[in-house]
Amino acid sequence: MTKSNLPLDAARLWSDIMALADITDPARPYTRRSFTALFLEGRAWLAQRFVEAGLTTRIDTAGNLIGRIEGRKPALGVIAVGSHSDTVPSGGRFDGIAGVATGLEIARALRESGVRLDHSLEVVDFLAEEPSEYGLSCVGSRGMTGSLDGKMLDLVEPGGEKLRDALRRVGGDPDRLDRAGRSDVRAFLELHIEQGIVLESQSLDIGVVTSIVGIRRIDIVFEGEADHAGTTPLHLRHDALLAAADTVTTVRRIAESLDAESSDYFVATVGILAVEPSASNIVPGRCRLIIDARTTNPALTTRFVAAIDRESEAAATAARVRRRAFATLSDGPPVACDAHLQGALRGAARDLGLGQADLPSGAGHDAAFMSRICPSAMVFVPCRGGKSHAPEEWADRDAVAAGAAVILQAVKALDRSLQERRSA
Amino acid sequence: MTKSNLPLDAARLWSDIMALADITDPARPYTRRSFTALFLEGRAWLAQRFVEAGLTTRIDTAGNLIGRIEGRKPALGVIAVGSHSDTVPSGGRFDGIAGVATGLEIARALRESGVRLDHSLEVVDFLAEEPSEYGLSCVGSRGMTGSLDGKMLDLVEPGGEKLRDALRRVGGDPDRLDRAGRSDVRAFLELHIEQGIVLESQSLDIGVVTSIVGIRRIDIVFEGEADHAGTTPLHLRHDALLAAADTVTTVRRIAESLDAESSDYFVATVGILAVEPSASNIVPGRCRLIIDARTTNPALTTRFVAAIDRESEAAATAARVRRRAFATLSDGPPVACDAHLQGALRGAARDLGLGQADLPSGAGHDAAFMSRICPSAMVFVPCRGGKSHAPEEWADRDAVAAGAAVILQAVKALDRSLQERRSA
Repeated sequence: MTKSNLPLDAARLWSDIMALADITDPARPYTRRSFTALFLEGRAWLAQRFVEAGLTTRIDTAGNLIGRIEGRKPALGVIAVGSHSDTVPSGGRFDGIAGVATGLEIARALRESGVRLDHSLEVVDFLAEEPSEYGLSCVGSRGMTGSLDGKMLDLVEPGGEKLRDALRRVGGDPDRLDRAGRSDVRAFLELHIEQGIVLESQSLDIGVVTSIVGIRRIDIVFEGEADHAGTTPLHLRHDALLAAADTVTTVRRIAESLDAESSDYFVATVGILAVEPSASNIVPGRCRLIIDARTTNPALTTRFVAAIDRESEAAATAARVRRRAFATLSDGPPVACDAHLQGALRGAARDLGLGQADLPSGAGHDAAFMSRICPSAMVFVPCRGGKSHAPEEWADRDAVAAGAAVILQAVKALDRSLQERRSA
Repeated sequence: MTKSNLPLDAARLWSDIMALADITDPARPYTRRSFTALFLEGRAWLAQRFVEAGLTTRIDTAGNLIGRIEGRKPALGVIAVGSHSDTVPSGGRFDGIAGVATGLEIARALRESGVRLDHSLEVVDFLAEEPSEYGLSCVGSRGMTGSLDGKMLDLVEPGGEKLRDALRRVGGDPDRLDRAGRSDVRAFLELHIEQGIVLESQSLDIGVVTSIVGIRRIDIVFEGEADHAGTTPLHLRHDALLAAADTVTTVRRIAESLDAESSDYFVATVGILAVEPSASNIVPGRCRLIIDARTTNPALTTRFVAAIDRESEAAATAARVRRRAFATLSDGPPVACDAHLQGALRGAARDLGLGQADLPSGAGHDAAFMSRICPSAMVFVPCRGGKSHAPEEWADRDAVAAGAAVILQAVKALDRSLQERRSA
């Protein structure tokens, strides 16, 4: 392969990514949480770059930042490229950002090479892809695909603000969400770091994503009694943490058994476990835990949830506490990426002389929501040690540029092939 | 028994307790955390009552509020009565406060009945008995007994303030702590709600405390890797929560077995378990848990700690994480209450016609520190359902008054018997 003659400016793309990385909470790089002042500062910086690149720039009613170059035949509709600029707490410099910067660089590269597409091109920074303080992820891509409902808008962050008010604060309009809905997008492409080690371990440049895992999030609350830790004999306690700890162990055991039984991908995680009142001398009176289960085969999730339902109820009984809640917070089914778009990406990687493999995605992405309204596909680029959502997250300059070049070439190819398919 | 002819004013005692209860964070009654503005408001109210009762009132260098009636023979030294006026978050109206109000009512009752003791009488509101934001409990009684060292004074609360600066803020003087040390106290008596159900279940009025449990606090930190919950296969994870959950289960199992093997009291609790980074889509990279173990027999704690040390290390290995810390945060030995003082309390209860039982205390108290410098003992009064450290904490008016009367009678008896023992 060669990465020296890419049809875009790798250094400029890299410098955008690094500049956005600098807009971080200095106390815990790299943090630019959705809806915060830092997030808005990052967006203002991005919007400025969009405008400089000649993009007509706006924020839609779902809070997505969109830059657009009108096509020569606007009636054909839109080819969209993008990802998100928010991060998890103490996250990395590439997750999301690399995909937004890729869209921007593609727009600049097309313009500088004098290529004007027949389709309109849109670069999208989706709002709040990471799980936000409101307990919801992919807020912007849900909004664009008619998947953000009133119940979600009423979600409240710990400070008491509703998501609908936060959305207004970042330039969206929760009362006119229908205006963010789109029927004119013909293709959506997203570049993202792999967040795994397949490409790195096989020294490959490009992963063409075949499917995106379904994610089920389950909220469990155990309620016992907040008794004195010194004066309450063990056999009289109602310790909510005992039930929660047992459930953590069970989640892992059942996930391992489901993952082992076939070639389907299955993982489950307890990433949040909160204890109340959280004092060393008080028996935990209340515990909340959130389970994140992901798979390429939804039948496995169904069995997983049934098993956890049964076993967490048994754990509550054993600990003499009540299971107050066992609720599905969100349930996104697995999504297959569009075959025609995958073909365009494979062709582009081949033409550019890059090493490639087909991969499933274990992470959720805005592309999973976009697939509800248009053909969607993704390119993965390798990242060091598979690390993401952490400050040490890293992708090489040329690796990101190679992925961006694949998307650029695919966009050009799709600008033709989508017309041919339509007229065929 | 009869509670109608008590030698003190039950209604006045009760009204003091209720008035202090009103000085609370209105959003979460009953909360008057040490070192806060509300705590100082409560103290100002108390100091005013002390002065009205004719007590010479001051704050010592350890931040204890002390009211004093000079004895007829001051050279005999001091009989002290007291407890604390701070609360846990969302605590109750009686824990600590009932003991301080008892001291105040005794001083008033003595004065009004024209009794002047030979010993001086001091009423003490000890500073910060509950675990404070600085991670330390019994700050004032530690200070009065020479048990508050420079390392403790350097403890920092989440907002960044050092304990030494907070102590200065509430009227203490961390640079002159030696002045708070006492060699003139001949007896310390503390009334407290039982925080258990023994008295209530046996319809008894008075618990004479035989010993106060030793409390060992252990801090364990597990460190793994904060990987992506979607893209990291289960067998490649380093999930710190798995080791922590296993340890929670182990703590309970070992505590049950130690408690069952003899008549010694043993309980252990994990009341704090904190997960980082605490996001639903990130494998927990770090977990901290705090274990609180209490017993009347220190040999059980030694065996408990050895077992938890071994098993938490094994849990770390099984979860492929490191055990970063296994530290003793504090270690107070069990304390036997003074036999002579216990006798005085039993005699007083008998004379007053009250039903009584001997009890160990599962909770720590200022009396445990005071026993380092003087004979100390405690009276428990029944509380509803054994509840404490919670808004529903409740003791009946007459139950508190009966306990206060026992202390008053014991103070009078000790004023004589301590002199006889000294001259004997």
